[in-house]
Amino acid sequence: MTVYQATASAPVNIACIKYWGKRDTKLILPTNSSLSVTLDQDHLRSTTTSRADPSFQKDRLWLNGEEEEIKDGGRLATCIKEMKALRRELEDKDSSLPKISGYPVHICSRNNFPTAAGLASSASGFAALVASLAALYQLPTDASRLSLIARQGSGSACRSLFGGFVAWQMGEKPDGSDSYAVQVAPREHWPDIHALICVVSDDKKGTSSTSGMQRTVETSTLLQHRIKHVVPERMRAISEAILARDFDTFARITMQDSNQFHAVALDTDPPIFYMNDVSRAIIALIVEYNRVAVANGGKLKAAYTYDAGPNAVIYAPKENIKEIVELIVKYFPQADSFKDPFGLFSGKGVTGKVVDGFNEAVAKPFGVGAVKNLIHTRVGDGPRTLGAEETLLGENGLPKQT
Amino acid sequence: MTVYQATASAPVNIACIKYWGKRDTKLILPTNSSLSVTLDQDHLRSTTTSRADPSFQKDRLWLNGEEEEIKDGGRLATCIKEMKALRRELEDKDSSLPKISGYPVHICSRNNFPTAAGLASSASGFAALVASLAALYQLPTDASRLSLIARQGSGSACRSLFGGFVAWQMGEKPDGSDSYAVQVAPREHWPDIHALICVVSDDKKGTSSTSGMQRTVETSTLLQHRIKHVVPERMRAISEAILARDFDTFARITMQDSNQFHAVALDTDPPIFYMNDVSRAIIALIVEYNRVAVANGGKLKAAYTYDAGPNAVIYAPKENIKEIVELIVKYFPQADSFKDPFGLFSGKGVTGKVVDGFNEAVAKPFGVGAVKNLIHTRVGDGPRTLGAEETLLGENGLPKQT
Repeated sequence: MTVYQATASAPVNIACIKYWGKRDTKLILPTNSSLSVTLDQDHLRSTTTSRADPSFQKDRLWLNGEEEEIKDGGRLATCIKEMKALRRELEDKDSSLPKISGYPVHICSRNNFPTAAGLASSASGFAALVASLAALYQLPTDASRLSLIARQGSGSACRSLFGGFVAWQMGEKPDGSDSYAVQVAPREHWPDIHALICVVSDDKKGTSSTSGMQRTVETSTLLQHRIKHVVPERMRAISEAILARDFDTFARITMQDSNQFHAVALDTDPPIFYMNDVSRAIIALIVEYNRVAVANGGKLKAAYTYDAGPNAVIYAPKENIKEIVELIVKYFPQADSFKDPFGLFSGKGVTGKVVDGFNEAVAKPFGVGAVKNLIHTRVGDGPRTLGAEETLLGENGLPKQT
Repeated sequence: MTVYQATASAPVNIACIKYWGKRDTKLILPTNSSLSVTLDQDHLRSTTTSRADPSFQKDRLWLNGEEEEIKDGGRLATCIKEMKALRRELEDKDSSLPKISGYPVHICSRNNFPTAAGLASSASGFAALVASLAALYQLPTDASRLSLIARQGSGSACRSLFGGFVAWQMGEKPDGSDSYAVQVAPREHWPDIHALICVVSDDKKGTSSTSGMQRTVETSTLLQHRIKHVVPERMRAISEAILARDFDTFARITMQDSNQFHAVALDTDPPIFYMNDVSRAIIALIVEYNRVAVANGGKLKAAYTYDAGPNAVIYAPKENIKEIVELIVKYFPQADSFKDPFGLFSGKGVTGKVVDGFNEAVAKPFGVGAVKNLIHTRVGDGPRTLGAEETLLGENGLPKQT
């Protein structure tokens, strides 16, 4: 008997132009376009196995070993239903295809990064879900088409269907059919973009982005100006900067847009804060690091960006990452030694130091644990279809014990 | 021999609609109108003695016991020159008046609150300077006229020329002659408005408001929208709320405008942060305190506002201040016992507690010293001319030893 099963992995993406606000909450249609860098799956990824089997009783899903309810009309159910519909279209056109679109599916998904890392896993998770179902159903590979479906799981998931530098075009149609992701440039165009993720400890539960963004839409008197007048120009300019590999412009816009996203969150009633004193201190360090570079006749060397949480993601050309790790460790001593996936330190430890001319008074040193972890990664590729040896489901169609 | 000398005191004011941005940095003309509550001089004030004497060598000024240089063309020199010019007008019209406008002046000023309190003293300081010179020169009392001069010392000083609720009308003329303060309502109109100042410890030197606001003017892509479309409507609505003694509306607009001021500061490049984790926690407490009140069918009971620093000022009707002190002390234990100028606690200590139904998880408790001090005050009157017994200058025309 044939087993209909496929496994795929999908990457995390971190936006440079931020998505904040929906014009349609059911279809997940945004109030503005956004743009992100896809991070390397070698370091951060969601992996998902999907199997269709007529013996299954119903659609089921396990995330990190725990079964999740697939609510009728919910986001998971919507994505699965849409993927089955695409399969049915194929089956209707080609009667030689096995009729698996009618079978219940079992889906098993894992993230290789701990939830405690504070990294949004819904983008990579829904992208991996869609990618694994697309492989299972042998759908023609059109990532923009698939991104329409991933978008309905989690808005920013649509951008994880591509590697490299990815725009989510907001679209205009009420049915959302023109609100999908497109690739601005593949990773190979600008592989030199690296990222250092600073995982920041937070003792306060933040506002969820789903409820937070709608409160901003309803109450901020600045958001509409951002949407109509600021974002379109930034989308144009940062796309141009990516095509020209102009890091200086890329960095300036990335930092400005992170700040503006947090500004409209703060302009919400009641206000929403995602950054804390540690986040602010990291900004001060990067601002000073860039100031020294510019004072020495150079250009910007790093860009910070913050999503809906206190973690910093620092984008920089690879050659600057070593200095940035030294800088962060100087102010935020680490409990564990730096995992050095690119061998920047040749096996030597990080001592923690600043570049010449750096004004050390821009921030005060914090204790161990304020920044819990540093993850060095880089721009990466899009979803990957994996071999059978990577399957997360056992022969019985239930999650393998790990 | 006649001694020409006068002493005046002037109050602190804390804005509800924030001043942030100049259209003329020399004349100190703002990019938007603003509105503040004048606080009671019984608790917080600057006191200034001015003496004109032909034996003095030059204009001199002492602030809190230290001599300050009066730089040619600087703000102090401008204010003194303009006040002398008003006196000269009088002398020119009435030859019986002593010709003291040509005499050098000695000016001695003190604040009754420590600089360490983190309260901006430039507003009360320049208002007291102008008020004491107006008394010395026996100028006709027209506070709006004097506010034009105080404005050139420190923008927000113009609002400290009045008691009660005060608007600084931005004006339109290039010469600034229509950019002055007017009283929206005197303290007697709404004496029930009290204020609790939470003095927050900060280990980081903030950006000065003078340089910060101009960086916002130059780099924020949201500020112009605020100036043109948000502030005019808020000025209208909050003035109406004050005239109607509508605390609910007053509170909502006050909090929204504090948030928006900090939002445009954050939208600046590089971003400006004035609030820290303690400030954020106080916001969370007031938001929750108001939520409980509204959930019980009531209206907003308190409003926070933050100037260019981490200190919170909480406005509330007097009847709520006791609950608010209990709330703040619960999360921010105090080293010193609460100075209770209005006898709210009848000599009993503050124990620190929350109102029924309050979700204590909205903030974590901090250690002693995170909020260094609590100052309870209320809406107050405008500058006062004081008696000779209050003089700060000795017979020799130099500061008295204190």
